[in-house]
Amino acid sequence: MPAKAILISIGDEILYGQTLDTNSHWISGELDSLGIRVIKKITIGDSREEILDNLAESEKLADMVLITGGLGPTSDDLTKPCLTEYFGTQLERNEEILSHIKGMFERAGWEMSESNAMQADLPANCTPIKNSIGTAAGMWFDQNDTVFVSMPGVPFEMRQMMKDSILPKLKEKFVRDTINHRMIRTIGIGESKLAEIIKDWESQLPKTIKLAYLPTMGAVKLRLTTSGDNATTQKLVQAEIDKVIPLIEKFVYGYEDEEIEEAIGRMLKAKGMTLAVAESCTGGYLSHKITSVPGSSQWFNGSFVPYSNQLKNEQLHVDMKIIQEHGAVSEPVVLALAKNVRKEFKSDVGVSISGIAGPGGGTPEKPVGTVWIGYADAKKNVAKKFQFIRDRELNIKYSAVAALNMIRINLDKD
Amino acid sequence: MPAKAILISIGDEILYGQTLDTNSHWISGELDSLGIRVIKKITIGDSREEILDNLAESEKLADMVLITGGLGPTSDDLTKPCLTEYFGTQLERNEEILSHIKGMFERAGWEMSESNAMQADLPANCTPIKNSIGTAAGMWFDQNDTVFVSMPGVPFEMRQMMKDSILPKLKEKFVRDTINHRMIRTIGIGESKLAEIIKDWESQLPKTIKLAYLPTMGAVKLRLTTSGDNATTQKLVQAEIDKVIPLIEKFVYGYEDEEIEEAIGRMLKAKGMTLAVAESCTGGYLSHKITSVPGSSQWFNGSFVPYSNQLKNEQLHVDMKIIQEHGAVSEPVVLALAKNVRKEFKSDVGVSISGIAGPGGGTPEKPVGTVWIGYADAKKNVAKKFQFIRDRELNIKYSAVAALNMIRINLDKD
Repeated sequence: MPAKAILISIGDEILYGQTLDTNSHWISGELDSLGIRVIKKITIGDSREEILDNLAESEKLADMVLITGGLGPTSDDLTKPCLTEYFGTQLERNEEILSHIKGMFERAGWEMSESNAMQADLPANCTPIKNSIGTAAGMWFDQNDTVFVSMPGVPFEMRQMMKDSILPKLKEKFVRDTINHRMIRTIGIGESKLAEIIKDWESQLPKTIKLAYLPTMGAVKLRLTTSGDNATTQKLVQAEIDKVIPLIEKFVYGYEDEEIEEAIGRMLKAKGMTLAVAESCTGGYLSHKITSVPGSSQWFNGSFVPYSNQLKNEQLHVDMKIIQEHGAVSEPVVLALAKNVRKEFKSDVGVSISGIAGPGGGTPEKPVGTVWIGYADAKKNVAKKFQFIRDRELNIKYSAVAALNMIRINLDKD
Repeated sequence: MPAKAILISIGDEILYGQTLDTNSHWISGELDSLGIRVIKKITIGDSREEILDNLAESEKLADMVLITGGLGPTSDDLTKPCLTEYFGTQLERNEEILSHIKGMFERAGWEMSESNAMQADLPANCTPIKNSIGTAAGMWFDQNDTVFVSMPGVPFEMRQMMKDSILPKLKEKFVRDTINHRMIRTIGIGESKLAEIIKDWESQLPKTIKLAYLPTMGAVKLRLTTSGDNATTQKLVQAEIDKVIPLIEKFVYGYEDEEIEEAIGRMLKAKGMTLAVAESCTGGYLSHKITSVPGSSQWFNGSFVPYSNQLKNEQLHVDMKIIQEHGAVSEPVVLALAKNVRKEFKSDVGVSISGIAGPGGGTPEKPVGTVWIGYADAKKNVAKKFQFIRDRELNIKYSAVAALNMIRINLDKD
């Protein structure tokens, strides 16, 4: 039986719909990959009674209770006093945490307030967990047969703390059998289409291999899970991967943790090539995805966001007549943008995007979501039209993924 | 007392971290704006026992229980059989819903299966709610003093159903008093510093006004909540806002729903000015934030991401000698970038960012997180150094917010 976890998110702002709780989603995924089973997620407000009731209720049901939120320095943050009350203990100032907080303020050159110092006051029975990038320490409690962990609600602080200390501690305490995940990463095909292509392979999979389809924006990950990470199961899984790859090869861009923008970087580096981008409707998002990869400066020269038609013309020499005749969202415009940004930025590959992200700007001929993507290298200058049907934010994000996939496909052809 | 709601999301894919639950977030916001108080959100898996337990538990605590998910045509969808069991009733085929489903399949030209027809089998005691864009009907139950509503988990089907029928029905049945939120949006000051500045004001607030600090990246929102949205409470809240604003004026960029990038757009539009950006270490993220605002093409001309030093020199005429002498992350470089992108892109304001996002590239003098931001308009050309202490992703995001704040401060000075 896998260990059972309950996640509690605390905060009025989540209950009132002002903050989207992404913490419990992220934690779920991490626990799942350790083979820990999340049986329930609970969100409650900054209310003493609710917090105490749900701590007690969860203790009955789960092996571990992971709590996020309510650890700020202000008086509406109740998690710490409630935990202190729940465990019948009192607060004690922790000198190590205090000096960590002091150090953070010193390095940043800020003045430290008494309410910040009070963040070093922790329930006497907890094991403090250092927050390497914030002032609210985490707390680990062992209560009879249940572990309680309290973490800050700020997503990046929580994630760092989980990765640095909590996940390793949970793994040590609760995980007997190791769980082994292998991931095949596909792009440019939908979940149901993919399922159709591989259904015969799926039906013959050994019972010891669990298959999951994990769709994300414009991409689907296939996850093969086995428990007991030994040589035999590893070989078994690899044999199944070798069987399925020929069926879906043209959609597979990578394996395991590799994101599509990392795969592009890997491909460009292997070929000793550099990339330049001219993106209009995506407004910098494609460049942001690319530069989110550490070390991308090795293969990415830069990008240009010609949001106005004037800049498309003046900076990237797209003929005004072409823009007037075909519109900025058109094949000749993205062809010219890709070709010219490649040349101007002295790069091996040029990519361009021009589209109508919405909500305004659509016409019957070119509705919101119409996006042209262009590609140019030494041998090719090609373009493709996409029709997305989402809102502004999603049209932008899907366009960037489609452009990355277009780079992949064209680099593969070389 | 406002009516109390509990939201239950059902689905293994949410518990396992495969699907981010945005439904309960959206429903919370809608109920909040009606003045219905969400007291708890629960996520459970596709498990009969869990569903029945949580229905019973929720009935004790809430006036309404809104359930999403588990209504699909496959056997792992358990919501409908569980509701039928919970209310001690049986399924009956609803002819009206059946003909709606038939019509949908006919219009799409698909063949209808028996499992689709079974979606018209509904618990005898429910009021069916038509799903105008899908096959899973909603169900409304009045059980003693609690209303139960079951909806599909597909976000756009659920939203349509809520808007078309459920929200109006809930409003009619439950809404006496409305809840009123006012929001003051600050930037460039931390939560605890802000709390210290306004602590006297906070302590004299009338008990009927509830104050919350909502920190997000580089910004803190102050939310004042009252119930009973009538002229008296509105005046009372406004009087408190008028009192606090003078204390924190220089940090306040806007009110209610306005994001900082929207505030920048509003300010530029009011002055009839346009903006151009040259961003290096942020790699397009600042431009992405700006262009996430619908209609930003009215005041944003475009941006340039000169990721390599060569491009800084060739495209934006930053003297190579300056780059060699001071480094790309330096005051003279961001001053030149801001000035030159303003001129090249024929804009009223130019903003530039150059920094070390990490993880590599740091030195003892310029550690990871060192970021210079430049600003130029017709009268000024200024720069400021920031020291962030986060990881690559966060250094990028904080830098973009700092640049937006720098635009705000300098526009304010004009």
